[in-house]
Amino acid sequence: MCQLLGMNCNVPTDIVFSLTGFQQRGGLTDEHADGWGIAFFEGKGCRAFLDPEPAAHSPLADFVRRYPIRSLNVIAHIRKATRGPVGLENTHPFVRELWGRYWIFAHNGTLDGYAPPPGARYRAVGSTDSEAAFCELLNTLCLRFPDGAAEDGGVGDAGVEEEVAAWASRLSALGAFNFLLSDGERLFAHCSTKLAYIERCAPFTKARLIDSDLEVDFSAVTTPQDRVAVIATAPLTDNEQWVTLPAGQVAVFNQGRRV
Amino acid sequence: MCQLLGMNCNVPTDIVFSLTGFQQRGGLTDEHADGWGIAFFEGKGCRAFLDPEPAAHSPLADFVRRYPIRSLNVIAHIRKATRGPVGLENTHPFVRELWGRYWIFAHNGTLDGYAPPPGARYRAVGSTDSEAAFCELLNTLCLRFPDGAAEDGGVGDAGVEEEVAAWASRLSALGAFNFLLSDGERLFAHCSTKLAYIERCAPFTKARLIDSDLEVDFSAVTTPQDRVAVIATAPLTDNEQWVTLPAGQVAVFNQGRRV
Repeated sequence: MCQLLGMNCNVPTDIVFSLTGFQQRGGLTDEHADGWGIAFFEGKGCRAFLDPEPAAHSPLADFVRRYPIRSLNVIAHIRKATRGPVGLENTHPFVRELWGRYWIFAHNGTLDGYAPPPGARYRAVGSTDSEAAFCELLNTLCLRFPDGAAEDGGVGDAGVEEEVAAWASRLSALGAFNFLLSDGERLFAHCSTKLAYIERCAPFTKARLIDSDLEVDFSAVTTPQDRVAVIATAPLTDNEQWVTLPAGQVAVFNQGRRV
Repeated sequence: MCQLLGMNCNVPTDIVFSLTGFQQRGGLTDEHADGWGIAFFEGKGCRAFLDPEPAAHSPLADFVRRYPIRSLNVIAHIRKATRGPVGLENTHPFVRELWGRYWIFAHNGTLDGYAPPPGARYRAVGSTDSEAAFCELLNTLCLRFPDGAAEDGGVGDAGVEEEVAAWASRLSALGAFNFLLSDGERLFAHCSTKLAYIERCAPFTKARLIDSDLEVDFSAVTTPQDRVAVIATAPLTDNEQWVTLPAGQVAVFNQGRRV
């Protein structure tokens, strides 16, 4: 099964600590060796680093870990191919533009017999069920809210959350559908079988990675106002209280806290 | 003025040699210090590396130069900001999906008084005239050929070229509109004020960079069947015959040759 990692913050934060443990799962401490990717929002802009090579041995992964990008919303994914061959076009996260903003999406699980409606505006480039599902959501959103962007989040907030939840519930009937989704402000996390999160805020403490011999003292690198939510398939640290998301729930994170 | 670099080949080729000279222009041998980016097609997949930092001092640029990605179509851009502030969302190349394939676009020049039609399907995320122009082209293409992808290039070839030429001609009336555009197969190059290209094929010879003290013997790294077209704002080598594109012309490259 693939691995997901997400971060949502109230101040631009680097994800180097979490990523260090997470990347070990791509071929070293776990078997997810069919590529990996990470996408960062920086303002309205978005950078995705994608690699069809195993994360644990990827020069690109090393580069990203050493080049701390500060971001409010990050999604990373390590792939264990189940639908669609290993290849760049099948590497998560997927990125599309809707309403003049980028959306990013990564999925963990397999949907059985999923056939997205043909001929729509957003179409999958690769052959994963995941990208097709992401396109279906965007097609639904732009049909329901054609002028979404014009209302500057007005339609968005409740309406989009409703549609995301309905889509998540519909597709979960076909199989495991754990996902992370972000529009650059909010981060949506859906647990179908396995997903946990932690909200870090003052007073910050030390955290110790499970997959790597590394500890960080967050009190030394934060201010009392900082809030950071980290969401992952499985907890990344062994000395903090992670919250397991109940199956069937879409959690929405904004400004580093679950809303 | 910005700098453009494109490559179109018949076998996956790395762009390291051309990029080495090109990147010197981003703050060292020229003044284009407001960010840079490069996008590679690999099969149907696409990777864009974007950096709002000057190319000549960018760790990401160093990384890309040392990590040779083999690609049939590449577009790179070094930015001198004229419309829209320096920032990731205004960094070329821009990427969108149309008909289930990625399209990439980079522009050199400034359009005066350009106001794209509002409310359309593709919308700019940043504030450059370039991204807005790219969105206008994609909106035009998907309105004229709503099922483009279904016909597997059938509508595409002639119809798309016609639309690209009409759009290029229309927008050129507003200012300098040199651009490179690719759908992963073809690379379109439009010269409005400055653009040159070279087609390399057997018998391959040595080439020497203008901007960097580097020479490569292509005969040692190619096979007789290889064909590589390189397109750039200004010639990158001083011992080869570059062809200057006439103003107002859209050149189409496919399989490493101009068609």
